Amino acid sequence: MNEPFDAVDVIRTKRDRADLSSAQIDWVVDAYTRGVVAEEQMSALAMAILLNGMSRVEIARWTQAMIASGERMDFSGLSRPTADKHSTGGVGDKITLPLAPLVAVFGVAVPQLSGRGLGHTGGTLDKLESIPGWRAGLSNDEILAQLEDVGAVICAAGAGLAPADKKLYALRDVTGTVEAIPLIASSIMSKKIAEGTGALVLDVKVGSGAFMKDAAQARELARTMVELGTDAGVRTVALLTDMSVPLGRTAGNALEVRESVEVLDGGGPADVVDLTVALAVEMLDAAGRPTAESEVRAALQDGRAMDAWRRMIAAQGGDPDAELPVAKHNEQVRADSTGVLAELDAYAVGVAAWRLGAGRSRKEDPVQAGAGVEIHVRPGEQVVAGQPVMTLHSDTPERFDRARAALDGGWRVAPSGTPVARRPIVLDRIH
Amino acid sequence: MNEPFDAVDVIRTKRDRADLSSAQIDWVVDAYTRGVVAEEQMSALAMAILLNGMSRVEIARWTQAMIASGERMDFSGLSRPTADKHSTGGVGDKITLPLAPLVAVFGVAVPQLSGRGLGHTGGTLDKLESIPGWRAGLSNDEILAQLEDVGAVICAAGAGLAPADKKLYALRDVTGTVEAIPLIASSIMSKKIAEGTGALVLDVKVGSGAFMKDAAQARELARTMVELGTDAGVRTVALLTDMSVPLGRTAGNALEVRESVEVLDGGGPADVVDLTVALAVEMLDAAGRPTAESEVRAALQDGRAMDAWRRMIAAQGGDPDAELPVAKHNEQVRADSTGVLAELDAYAVGVAAWRLGAGRSRKEDPVQAGAGVEIHVRPGEQVVAGQPVMTLHSDTPERFDRARAALDGGWRVAPSGTPVARRPIVLDRIH
Repeated sequence: MNEPFDAVDVIRTKRDRADLSSAQIDWVVDAYTRGVVAEEQMSALAMAILLNGMSRVEIARWTQAMIASGERMDFSGLSRPTADKHSTGGVGDKITLPLAPLVAVFGVAVPQLSGRGLGHTGGTLDKLESIPGWRAGLSNDEILAQLEDVGAVICAAGAGLAPADKKLYALRDVTGTVEAIPLIASSIMSKKIAEGTGALVLDVKVGSGAFMKDAAQARELARTMVELGTDAGVRTVALLTDMSVPLGRTAGNALEVRESVEVLDGGGPADVVDLTVALAVEMLDAAGRPTAESEVRAALQDGRAMDAWRRMIAAQGGDPDAELPVAKHNEQVRADSTGVLAELDAYAVGVAAWRLGAGRSRKEDPVQAGAGVEIHVRPGEQVVAGQPVMTLHSDTPERFDRARAALDGGWRVAPSGTPVARRPIVLDRIH
Repeated sequence: MNEPFDAVDVIRTKRDRADLSSAQIDWVVDAYTRGVVAEEQMSALAMAILLNGMSRVEIARWTQAMIASGERMDFSGLSRPTADKHSTGGVGDKITLPLAPLVAVFGVAVPQLSGRGLGHTGGTLDKLESIPGWRAGLSNDEILAQLEDVGAVICAAGAGLAPADKKLYALRDVTGTVEAIPLIASSIMSKKIAEGTGALVLDVKVGSGAFMKDAAQARELARTMVELGTDAGVRTVALLTDMSVPLGRTAGNALEVRESVEVLDGGGPADVVDLTVALAVEMLDAAGRPTAESEVRAALQDGRAMDAWRRMIAAQGGDPDAELPVAKHNEQVRADSTGVLAELDAYAVGVAAWRLGAGRSRKEDPVQAGAGVEIHVRPGEQVVAGQPVMTLHSDTPERFDRARAALDGGWRVAPSGTPVARRPIVLDRIH
C-alpha cells in the first residue's frame, strides 16, 4: 500500500515544534493501528509530543483519530439522557459504586464503562468482582437493556472502543511517555466520546495519591479534557479534587464495596458522601436534569439509591446480599504515641494496599478480593499510644512486611493540639 | 538477570531534564546492546536527548559506553604515529582519497576506517570500489601490516567497533532522532576512539549539501567532538568547511576517483587541492610531525603522493593503472542564457548524483560505479547560452528526468558582471 506520509517526517514535524496537520494526525494514528508506523517510531513521536506539546486543534484531531480507529456506541435510542463520570484515579476512590445508582434514581442513565486497576490505584471492576456472581463483561445489547431498565451499568469497556488508544497506552507505559497531557486527555476522552455519553463529569484528582501531583498540571489536564468533550458535543465539566489523603476509610476491593454500601445505606465517611453528592449534582446538571444537593442527599438516606444499587448488581448476576470476601490474615498498624494524626499520605496507603494484594503490577496479575488497608483514624482525629491506626488485610502474610515498609513515613502522630489543616475535597470546578 | 536500573526511570530522568548518572548511561547502552532495553524505549530516550540535550560529562560517558560495547584497536606497536580524518559528509567530498597517501608521505600512518554512503552524500568505500580489483574488507592484521608498509589504509570499519552505535544509528534513522548533536558526536567519536588513532582531524561541513545546514550547529558539533577526543587522549582538531557548493568538479564514484588522481598528479580543482592540503597540514601537526604547507603541496607536485596512492591501492588488490568504469549513458545540462554562473547548490547536485545511481536509499542497494554529475562551470565562471554546465552520467537512462528535476532551481546564470561572492573553503578552526 502506498502511504501518503512518512513516519520520520511526522516525527520531525513535532520534534521541530511545528503543529501536525490534520492529515498527518489521521494517518499516523491509523498507520500505527495497522502496524505500518512501528512501535519505536510512535514512542519517539510520543516523547516529542510530551516535550513539545500539542495545540487544542491537534489534540482534538488526535482524539477524533483515536475514536475513528474503532467502533462508536449510540445511546440516542434510550428514553432518558445519559451521563458518565471519569476519575483520573486515586487511593480509596470507590465513588463510582454509590454514584452510578444514585444518579440513576433521578432518571439519568449512567453507562459507566470502566477498567481494571494497575499500580497503586484500584480498578472499579476489580472492586465489583469481589461481589459473588457479579460479571463485568456485557454485550452492547445488554448494556442498552440495563440502562433502559435499571438506569445504571458499570461494566468492562469493550476492546472495540478506540483500539489505537489501547495499543498506544501499552507503549507509553514502557517508554516514559505516560505523563503527556495531550496524550492523557485524548486517551480518556476518545473512549468516553466513542462510548456515546451525552454528558460527562471528570473527577481530576491532584495530590500524592493521584497521577497528577501538581495542581497546575491537573488543572491543565482538566481544561484540555473539558475542551475536547465540548468540541465533540458532549456536555463536559471537571471537578479538581483532593487526593493527598485516601478517600474514606478503606483501600482494597471488597473493603471498598463494603464502604460503598454503607454510603448507599445513608452512612459512610463524610468525604466519600460529599464527593459522591457533588459529582451526582454535576452529572444531573450536565444531563439536563438539575437537582438540588439536598434532594440528592435524600436519595442516599431514604433507600432509593440502595434500591438502584441492588438492581444494578443483580442485573449483572451479583448477589447484593452475599457476604463479601474477607482476607485470611490481618495485622494492625498501631500508634507509637498519643496525640493527633497529623498526616496520612494517600500514596503510601495506595502502595501498601497494592502490596497486600489489592492491586496488580502487570495486567495479567490476579488481585485478592479481601486484601487492602482499613483506616481507623483519619487526619485531625485523636489517637492514643498503642491504638490501631490501620488494619492491613491479605491472604498472603508474607506481604505484610513490604506493606508496612510502604507506610513508613506515610503517617505521623503529632502532639495533641497541633493544628491539622484540612483541604476541602473539591478544590475547583472547570467547565 | 537482575538489572540495576529500570529503562523507564532512565528515560524519565532525561525527559525531566536531569543529567543521567554515569551508572545509568553505562547500563542503558549495555542493556540496549543486549536487547534488554527495547527499541521503543531507546527511541524515546533518543528523542528526550535530542530535545533536552546532554552535558559534556554525559556525552563523554555515553561515548565511553559505546566504545565499551565492542573491541578496541591498538596502533601503538607501529613504528610511526597515526592520524585519521573524519568528514561529516558532503557532495563531491573525495578528499580522503588524495589525503591519506599525501599524509603517509610524511611518515604519519593513516588508518582511514570508512563507511558506505547513504542518501545524497557519497561513501568513500563506494568510490574506491570503482577501481577494478580493489577490496574494502581487511583483517586487523592486514590493516596493521599495510600501515607499517604503505602508511595508509582506507578500508571498511569492522563490525566489532562500537556495535551499540551501529544498532542505535539504525534506530535513529527511522525515528527522526538522527539530528541530536550529543548522539552524532558520540557516534562518530566512539568509532574513531575505538579505532585507536593517536590524532584526529574533523572536517565538519556546513551548508546546503551538508548534514548541518547551520553554522552555529556545526560549530557546536565540532566543539563537542573536539572535547570528546581530547578527553579520551586523542589529539583532535576540527575544521569547519564550506559545503554550500559541491567540492571540485565531480560527484559520483569513478568520477571522483578520476578527479582525485588528477589532484595526486599535481592538478585538479583548486578547492579540492586547498582542502586536501589544509587537512594534511592539520593531521601532520596533530600527529607531532608539523610540516609547512609548501612542503605538503610539493608532495602533490613531485609524484610522492601519487606513489603512495599507487602502493595503497595495489596493497588492497586494486590496479592503479586500470581504466575506470564509465556510465553507459550521458546527457548534458546546458545554460539557457549567457552570463556568469551565480549559484550551484551542493544539495541539488548531491540529490541529482544520487538519483543517477551514484548513491543508495537503503543500505542494501547497489551503486553504479560510473554514475554521477560532472561540473563544467563553477560559480563565478562565465558561461555562454547553450554551453554545457554539467554532464549527467548513468547506466539507466530513465533516471535522467528525476536527476534534472533535482537540479531545477539549484543553479542560476546571472548577467555578466554580476558579482558572485566566494566563501573560503575553510571557515573556522576549532581545537
